[in-house]
Amino acid sequence: MTTTLEGIEVLFFDVFGTVVDWRSSVVRELTDLGASLSLSYSDSDWEEFTLEWRRAYLTATKRVGNGSGTANLNVDEMNRENLDKMLSSERWAQLREKLSPEQTAHLNLVWRRLHGWPDSVEGLERLEQKVIIVALSNGNVRLLTEMAKFAGLPWNVIFSAGLFDSYKPDPLVYQRAMKHLSVKPENCAMVAAHDWDIIAAAKQGMKTVYVHRPEEGDVPEVTVRTKQDGGDADFIVHSFLELADLLK
Amino acid sequence: MTTTLEGIEVLFFDVFGTVVDWRSSVVRELTDLGASLSLSYSDSDWEEFTLEWRRAYLTATKRVGNGSGTANLNVDEMNRENLDKMLSSERWAQLREKLSPEQTAHLNLVWRRLHGWPDSVEGLERLEQKVIIVALSNGNVRLLTEMAKFAGLPWNVIFSAGLFDSYKPDPLVYQRAMKHLSVKPENCAMVAAHDWDIIAAAKQGMKTVYVHRPEEGDVPEVTVRTKQDGGDADFIVHSFLELADLLK
Repeated sequence: MTTTLEGIEVLFFDVFGTVVDWRSSVVRELTDLGASLSLSYSDSDWEEFTLEWRRAYLTATKRVGNGSGTANLNVDEMNRENLDKMLSSERWAQLREKLSPEQTAHLNLVWRRLHGWPDSVEGLERLEQKVIIVALSNGNVRLLTEMAKFAGLPWNVIFSAGLFDSYKPDPLVYQRAMKHLSVKPENCAMVAAHDWDIIAAAKQGMKTVYVHRPEEGDVPEVTVRTKQDGGDADFIVHSFLELADLLK
Repeated sequence: MTTTLEGIEVLFFDVFGTVVDWRSSVVRELTDLGASLSLSYSDSDWEEFTLEWRRAYLTATKRVGNGSGTANLNVDEMNRENLDKMLSSERWAQLREKLSPEQTAHLNLVWRRLHGWPDSVEGLERLEQKVIIVALSNGNVRLLTEMAKFAGLPWNVIFSAGLFDSYKPDPLVYQRAMKHLSVKPENCAMVAAHDWDIIAAAKQGMKTVYVHRPEEGDVPEVTVRTKQDGGDADFIVHSFLELADLLK
């Protein structure tokens, strides 16, 4: 079997959902917080809270990345704006009333305390032996750095889209990332669990690796196809260990 | 003893001369290259070659950083331009005549293969346990990344001044670095072996640590003073191990 991952010098990784499991990490902290504050929210309430918070982020970043809007380019701050909006609603009034200012500030930074998927750290460590591994995320640099230290992610380079004054999937973000890594499109690949990220990277000539992650696909699994099948992905993998094997 | 390094969250490091010993690393490679090509240059010729090459870089970056000129913002490329100029001179004609295009390209990337000072890796590893450690260098990202992998430098973040479209000591570089790390001046410090870098960082309100490195000082040792003595440095140290002790 020939592999189009020959000649790869740099791997760019989407982070939220691709490297770290935001959903269960945030739900777990909220559940613990709810218990410590004796709140009456259920597990599915916390699941809903997490999805609502994530959706607000995703909507704002995509609006910017698609060139159809503006938003705060610092995700720590954007998360706080979105959290404050949620807490001001009736739905989460019980949480608002019990949270101290310090607890609210701490909760907001839960996005710095996300855990990797089971294969993430080992997979990245193996990949880092072979190529340059780069976080290419919409998260701000401080968030991504604290997360890397917390979760043990061995990034060689952390690139926030905010360094380039936009958000993915703006073509500028991929172009600047390649420029500052001095790498040609054919010598790098974008690794992501979301089809829109894969499609945007492929448009810039980058190679692409789609990683299946539970509930991260924006579209049913069957529509993410390899280039061989008329899609945008050079490879479809289910873990970073599988990806590391492709670079042997 | 009270230490003004309390409250530090992020340490920014100058790299060339502060973390890595460019002088002996480059001279060593040139000496080996000269021997392999049976050239008649002496050790002091190679020392001179290294200083001339470094001086061309320093002159161009400072011109940009001081707002009085333009230059290539990619140091790998700038080094190549400077190398080609040197090789076209009579002084280095013997080298030019023997170097193949591949050897010239390889020689140009010697700046990616610099070794740390004896205390650098161990010191950075200790510091990385306590704070966020950031390379803040005029080198381009690819150069700094390859160097980190080569020399084992455990950076959390690699910031090239080129990301901010300038060179140190342009105030913008320090301002953007702090902004993207979401850190206030009083909660970070610039660590450098050159007084001009210390002075520029202090002007932005950052704390500063001057590190003595052999032959790196731009001015006689006695003129680099602590703030207590009317200078710009919060601390003067002789190694990163000494610096790590200050953060205990």
